[in-house]
Parts: sequence; structure tokens; C-alpha cells
Amino acid sequence: MRWTLPNRDSAYRLSALERQSILTKPTGALGALEDVAVWLADIQQTETPLANSPAVIVFASDHPVSELGVSAYPREVTPMMVLNLAVGGAAASVLSRLHSAPLHIVDVGAEPYPAPAANEHVHWSRVNPRGVVGNLRDSDAMDSTALEHSLKAGADAVDALPKGTNVLILGEMGIGNTTPASAIAARLLQCSADEMVGPGTGVSGEALQAKCEIVASALARTEGNSDPFEVMRRLGGREIAAIVGAMGRAAEQGIAILVDGFIVSSAALVAVKMDERVRDYLWFGHRSAEPGHARILEALDASPLVDAGLRLGEGSGALTSLPLVQAAVALHNEMATFEQASVPNRES
Amino acid sequence: MRWTLPNRDSAYRLSALERQSILTKPTGALGALEDVAVWLADIQQTETPLANSPAVIVFASDHPVSELGVSAYPREVTPMMVLNLAVGGAAASVLSRLHSAPLHIVDVGAEPYPAPAANEHVHWSRVNPRGVVGNLRDSDAMDSTALEHSLKAGADAVDALPKGTNVLILGEMGIGNTTPASAIAARLLQCSADEMVGPGTGVSGEALQAKCEIVASALARTEGNSDPFEVMRRLGGREIAAIVGAMGRAAEQGIAILVDGFIVSSAALVAVKMDERVRDYLWFGHRSAEPGHARILEALDASPLVDAGLRLGEGSGALTSLPLVQAAVALHNEMATFEQASVPNRES
Repeated sequence: MRWTLPNRDSAYRLSALERQSILTKPTGALGALEDVAVWLADIQQTETPLANSPAVIVFASDHPVSELGVSAYPREVTPMMVLNLAVGGAAASVLSRLHSAPLHIVDVGAEPYPAPAANEHVHWSRVNPRGVVGNLRDSDAMDSTALEHSLKAGADAVDALPKGTNVLILGEMGIGNTTPASAIAARLLQCSADEMVGPGTGVSGEALQAKCEIVASALARTEGNSDPFEVMRRLGGREIAAIVGAMGRAAEQGIAILVDGFIVSSAALVAVKMDERVRDYLWFGHRSAEPGHARILEALDASPLVDAGLRLGEGSGALTSLPLVQAAVALHNEMATFEQASVPNRES
Repeated sequence: MRWTLPNRDSAYRLSALERQSILTKPTGALGALEDVAVWLADIQQTETPLANSPAVIVFASDHPVSELGVSAYPREVTPMMVLNLAVGGAAASVLSRLHSAPLHIVDVGAEPYPAPAANEHVHWSRVNPRGVVGNLRDSDAMDSTALEHSLKAGADAVDALPKGTNVLILGEMGIGNTTPASAIAARLLQCSADEMVGPGTGVSGEALQAKCEIVASALARTEGNSDPFEVMRRLGGREIAAIVGAMGRAAEQGIAILVDGFIVSSAALVAVKMDERVRDYLWFGHRSAEPGHARILEALDASPLVDAGLRLGEGSGALTSLPLVQAAVALHNEMATFEQASVPNRES
């Protein structure tokens, strides 16, 4: 799969680099915030990057693998947490409200629950699931129908965003989903289950060992698969596929993507393996406490902005880093140059 | 020197910990943001911590050592950058405006410059310097008069903050001031100059070597000194002393302090060595790219929130982390509990 990505004129990137060198600070002294400003100028193709219209999409799905005891929470928590997100009580609800980022919840296959009441800040929708899903240990996570349907749900969710959205945060809710994310990342990076599996919501001891064995079985079942599309289908997760679809469509539209933690990074790995040009549209928001995240970050040559030990998902980690992206933009656009401030620049 | 710090009832800390365990997330999944919320509840002695009234104080001073070529910028840049801060063009000006944190600039000994025009968002004041200052290699950075005067200026600046200020960011401007900061930290942590000195604004090669030798001379001149008050006086920096004075007074008033990078952390080291109880009032905002910062952080058992390679000073690093503190507060106060959301908590 190749997405139809825009051509970019390198002049904007070079112009942003030049501007960073004449602002009243030693060049490089704003660290990654300089890189973020240059990145946004490049993908937005502008002299004046913007991050003032963020949006969050949280994709939610049930996972049959959660019946095998891979999470500290039962399967039924997924729909309950979707409702909690919708009524404003979950971490991502609080952070999206704090940062004035509208929160879109797209249910791509959570178990049934009553539709939540309308809410000024939160947009909830349900995509009736299609296709067959499995527990990835004994059967494929998705058949082709479920995969295609989920990918399309992701792209459609991006198409439905308000015009002018300039930073997109993707999140997920799905009890058990560190298991498929670990399996996908281990398969694509050729790691063992032990190297990729971590505590997720907080399993340890025998439960962690059982989770490792499930991932090891799934890896054995898919031995030899390296096509990212097929790896995603077999090891799955409908919300992970939806995130991949959303990433591709956002890149097609030139929208900057602020990547969350372990699950969303596993989707990013799939998207980049499918089309390496998608990497240009990604900035990594935070370093998750989930140990496998470091391996994915390394493979994608990513240095996240925030390192605060979060491991919650929902997009919450990326949301904590949104103000840093907005700071990078404000600094780039509003700082005085040496000439404007009549300050002598260093001899170069 | 011992400050008159408030007694705290541990019930607020315990209550905040208890609340974190019943919010709709796995316990610990918000990482350092949970710790920040508990910290604020403790030092503010409240069930409902606040971070909605931040303030920034940037102390500015000239350094005779800048004549010895320790910086990539000439001495005259200090007053020019003070003006740039005051009129809104410096990094800290932009970030404090972005985050609605009033910026107070207190000149405790910068070279002369015309007083800046009044500005809605920035408060500028000058404390007429007193006492004698030196270049720390050949003579003490401050005599007792200069030190006492600077410490008092710091405390006075905190007293002048709007009532209700609940997060204080301290910053500095002073060309050459990584040199005294390195000397102070190396002396108090018993490191060599080589182990503590870094590029600062961006010196390298012979200039970096010369900076190292100046710090080594200053360390040799103060061999055997371990009293933090005397170390600060001899190795100095009036803005560093002002920051120490401000930290003590803020702690006395129960105001949370968000610590910036290398220079402010060297002041924190002095303050904590003077009175270890001050440590309770500090959270470290960011990990500076200045290599010596890691040593100070380790000595103070600090894990900063943001790791984005900043090395600018002015309080800019702490300012980038302010939204994370505000996120921690919003999550603590606004997330639903498991009971409120009718979500089953894990078996414990």
C-alpha cells in the first residue's frame, strides 16, 4: 500500500533552519523545539508553522485475546472506559479539555454499550464492525474484511476532522492491546516475545509469563511473514489498523501527527514499513514506561519530547507533549532576531 | 542559614496518594504526573492542588569572568538580552506569554542600559547593586555585602509576587554564568573542573579548555571550602545568589518551585545544602543538554519532566514543563474514580 503523499518544496525547511540561526539564542539552544518548528514548517509548507488547531482521535476496540488473561483488567472494561472517555472522566478526556483539543472517539469494535449522551467537547461515533476477529494465538486477529474496514474507519475519521486541523493526536482504548502491539512490533523488528512484551496495564509474575507465551505462539504461527499489511492483519487489533489508516490519510493531507506511546508506536511502525514517507509526518510525543517502546523508537530513529514514565495510552502521552509543540511554534514565530533586538550574534 | 519553613500535615500527601489509586487508570500509569500531583497536594496542604497562577522571575547580572573569554558572546550581551526579555523578544518572554505566566525581570547587577518601556505582561525592576564583585579566578565573585544584597533581592522579588501565586519558575540571564555555576557545583559535589564544565552558550576547543582552566583555578583558590554560603559568595554570581534567596522565601511561603536547567540547578544545590528541607519545594522541569546538569540532578535525586535538549536558561526549560505540571493537576482533580465511572478496578 502506498499513500498519495504531497510533494514538498525543501525551501520551507531551509528557510526555517535559517530563521532558527538568527533568533536571539545560541543556535541549537532550544534543542528539539527547534527541530519541531523546522519539521512543522516543512510538512505544512509555510514560513509560519501552526499548532493551534489540534485534534485527538481515540479508536476503541475489543480484543478476543483479553479472554486469555493478558491484562490486569477484564474484557468488559473496554466499553466502560469508552463511556468514561465520552463523558469526560478519563485521562485523555481531561487532557484534551485542558488543551482545547476536540476529542473524537471512534468505536471500531468495542463490545456493546449504550450510546453516550452528546457532549460539547467530545464527539463519539461507532463504526459497525465487519469481518471476523481472532485471538492471534490460535487464529488471525482479523480477516481481510475486518482489516480493510478498520483501515477505512481510520481514514474516514481524519476526513471528518474540522478543516484546518494542524496537529493530530491518535490514541486507543482496548483492554489487552499491548499483546497485539507487542506481537506486531516483535514480528516486524525480528525480536523475540521476551524482548518486546512488558507489563502493559500492570501484569507481572505468572500472568506476564503467560502473556509472553501467547505472543511467542503468535510469532511462531506467523513465522516468515514480513509484509506489514499481512502482519497487521494476522496479529492485529482493529484500533491499531484504524490508527494506521488514520496516519496514512493525515500524511496525505499534510497534517502533523504527534505519536503517543507503545500501541500507537506499533501502528506507526506498520505505517512506516508500508510507506517509509509517512515517517516525515510523525513526531514522537513521549517515551512510554512500557519497555518495548524503546525498541520501536530506536527502529524509527525517534527521540520523544517528554520522558515522564507514562504508560496509559488513550493518547494521553502525546497530549502531555502537545504544549511543547505549541511552544516550539510560538518560539519560532515570535522570538526576536539578533538584528531586531540589536544584539550581536556570535562570530561564526 | 535556616529558613522558617512551614510545618506540613502528612494527611494531604496520603490522601492524594489514595486518590491516585482510585482514578480510572492503572495505578502508576501516569508516571511522574502522579508524583507531581501528590507533591503539590503536600506542599500546598490541600485536597485540590492548583497550578493555575504561575509566575516567572528572571534575575540578571553581569559577570566579570566574562572578560576572560568563557562565553561565545561578549559581556555587553547581558544588558541587551535583558532589554530583549523586557520587550518580549526572548525565549522566556515568548513562553511566559504563551503560558499566561507573568514575567518579572529583576536586574541585580547587569551593566547599564536604558530602562525599558512599560509592558503589560513583563515587570522590570533594577536593584542598585552594592558590594564588590570579582572574576572568581583571581578574586571572590562577591564580597559579603554583594552576597547579602543579592539574597535579599531574591527574597524581595518573591514577596512582590501577586498573592495566590502557586508555581514559581526562576530563571537567569548573565553572559558567562555557566562558569560560576560549574565552579559552585564542582566545589559542592567534589568534582573536578573537567567533570563539570561544558559548552554553555557553545564554546568548544581551546575556548572550552580555557573555561575549564578558569574553573580549575577557582576551585584551587577555594580548596577546603565546603560551607554552601561561603562557596556561593566566593564562586558566585549575583543572579545565582538571588535565585537561592528566592528559593528560600518561596519555600517559606509554601510556593512550588519549578527548577530550570544548569544555572538554576546549581542555585538549588546551594539552597538544599544550606537547608535540606528546601528540596521538598522543588520539582525539576527539564534535563539540560549542558553535561554537568546530570551530576547536579543525580546529587539532588531529581528526574526532570522534559528531556528535549534545551540549554538556553532564562527559565525557558522550566517554562516548557509548566503545562505538564498543570496537566498533573487537572488529571488529579478532574479524572473520574472507578466508582464514579462504574468501571471495576483490578483485583489488588
